[in-house]
Amino acid sequence: MRELTVKETAQRLLECESAHILIHRRPDGDCTGSGFALMYALRSMGRKARVLCSDEIPEKFHFLMPEVETLEEFHPEMIISADIADEQLFGENLTEYEGRVDLCIDHHISNTGYAKELCLDGNAAAACQVAYEVIREMGIPFTREIAMCLYTGIATDTGCFMHDNAKARTFEIVSEIMTMYPDIPYADINRRMFTIKSIGRLRLEGLLAEQIESFADGRFTVITITKELMEKYGIAESDFEGLAGFPLQVEGAEVGAVIKEREGGECRISLRSAGDMNVSLICQSFGGGGHKRAAGCSIYASPQETKQLIIDAVLKGFEQA
Amino acid sequence: MRELTVKETAQRLLECESAHILIHRRPDGDCTGSGFALMYALRSMGRKARVLCSDEIPEKFHFLMPEVETLEEFHPEMIISADIADEQLFGENLTEYEGRVDLCIDHHISNTGYAKELCLDGNAAAACQVAYEVIREMGIPFTREIAMCLYTGIATDTGCFMHDNAKARTFEIVSEIMTMYPDIPYADINRRMFTIKSIGRLRLEGLLAEQIESFADGRFTVITITKELMEKYGIAESDFEGLAGFPLQVEGAEVGAVIKEREGGECRISLRSAGDMNVSLICQSFGGGGHKRAAGCSIYASPQETKQLIIDAVLKGFEQA
Repeated sequence: MRELTVKETAQRLLECESAHILIHRRPDGDCTGSGFALMYALRSMGRKARVLCSDEIPEKFHFLMPEVETLEEFHPEMIISADIADEQLFGENLTEYEGRVDLCIDHHISNTGYAKELCLDGNAAAACQVAYEVIREMGIPFTREIAMCLYTGIATDTGCFMHDNAKARTFEIVSEIMTMYPDIPYADINRRMFTIKSIGRLRLEGLLAEQIESFADGRFTVITITKELMEKYGIAESDFEGLAGFPLQVEGAEVGAVIKEREGGECRISLRSAGDMNVSLICQSFGGGGHKRAAGCSIYASPQETKQLIIDAVLKGFEQA
Repeated sequence: MRELTVKETAQRLLECESAHILIHRRPDGDCTGSGFALMYALRSMGRKARVLCSDEIPEKFHFLMPEVETLEEFHPEMIISADIADEQLFGENLTEYEGRVDLCIDHHISNTGYAKELCLDGNAAAACQVAYEVIREMGIPFTREIAMCLYTGIATDTGCFMHDNAKARTFEIVSEIMTMYPDIPYADINRRMFTIKSIGRLRLEGLLAEQIESFADGRFTVITITKELMEKYGIAESDFEGLAGFPLQVEGAEVGAVIKEREGGECRISLRSAGDMNVSLICQSFGGGGHKRAAGCSIYASPQETKQLIIDAVLKGFEQA
């Protein structure tokens, strides 16, 4: 694997006659945005390019895709991947591309270096931020489609500029995009990406809010979801995606836990920290793991017993700090 | 009233020996941020300055204030107002300043021109954006306190860069602030401003989510809160602040209504539009008013009857469109 500069990467794309652009399974705004932005950039030069994804692209990102796809099948000269840190993220329908990626454009410092050439900026908020630098360097017209794709990827990967990956250059790039295209409906895009929820999701959040319990003077908040509750409200485990941080919304909470009862006497625990406590140590003590501020583990006990074990462990952690 | 340029405004502040800086009642992040930023700017030059507010500043904004206030009382040479569009917003404890403001720094196009001199930019996302331009123009050191104040005001007034008042210059300013102070904990500020809620507020949102009803194939969503429900859950009408848009979170919703039962047979309706429907026309037909996308009215009927009247009016609106 060879690391490329933005300039070298731009040169590769300027010379590329045709490409398949891979994005990761379970596609999000950033891989969709960077994949399609690169596709539009190549097509704007009359080259053949197509985005491939193992999973269907969610409807909320369809506005980034061509309304009608007229390009016929072609044999690509080059295989490009966007926002994919690891070949394991290709997904089951793209395994044929393993070991075959010519150029990867990414922002994950964890990138495994599976591609022949890699354009990586670990400080970039999003793959779309790297793609922006590359497309600017190419010197081709920066179309409205490209602008929408890159804005959307940057906005989604930063949680609408809320997370600490949104840095000076990130804001500067958005300013440049908005200067070029002041009339793109950015606020409408944000609303679609961040505010709008299915009524089921909204009701689930309501249910979670009702179940919150506070311990240690509110420093630890816990939500326990029993099988009974999930059946009563028709909730699947997949519905909980992205909700592990929910208990940390509460004022004063430093650590939050979501405990979900599973089949076979298992309880799955997601722990999140907003402060100094290293929750991966607590999860490790139960055979799990993770990072300082986000970790998980399983305990084979009733929800009530599991909750007590976690409360004891977190309270002990507060005492030791 | 005379309108000042940014340059003239900077000159006024450079010449100002002492000032009382007024911010509006029920202070938010923008008036607090712009008021204290101007105060820090004057103090950094050894001048006397103090921020005055009719109401107590909420604890979430206390990090923008000096930890200890050591400045003694003084008679100000100049009265400045920040982010106040109208003298009516001074609040009951600052009425003595009516007719006495020398300089107003604001971004509301609705500013009534009550001050002797006015620095207004109706295109700015926040008063903090105008204050940024003025303080840069002053050419004084841009301190960390000033940076935190201005960032916070810009972030809060744009809903963390989600609304359509966040434009190219807004992003550029944040980029400039972050370049000067990359180590300010922007993400922690965002979390405090946008994510953290009281447990009561979270439970109220949960309750609202449970009450959502959909009409017109999901294009119209309604939440009805009866007196009985408010008593049962101990909710005050003031708890609903900022929740009029709640029903519009639902996927597919174009118009949303929150109906609250009040004393004396009144129901108060807040209507919001995310699309083309002009909800102020509907509210006008019931004796209320507002803007195209945000309006309100009262109906003297039971919650059930009120709901039916509003449903009929909105459905008629959809048909006419």
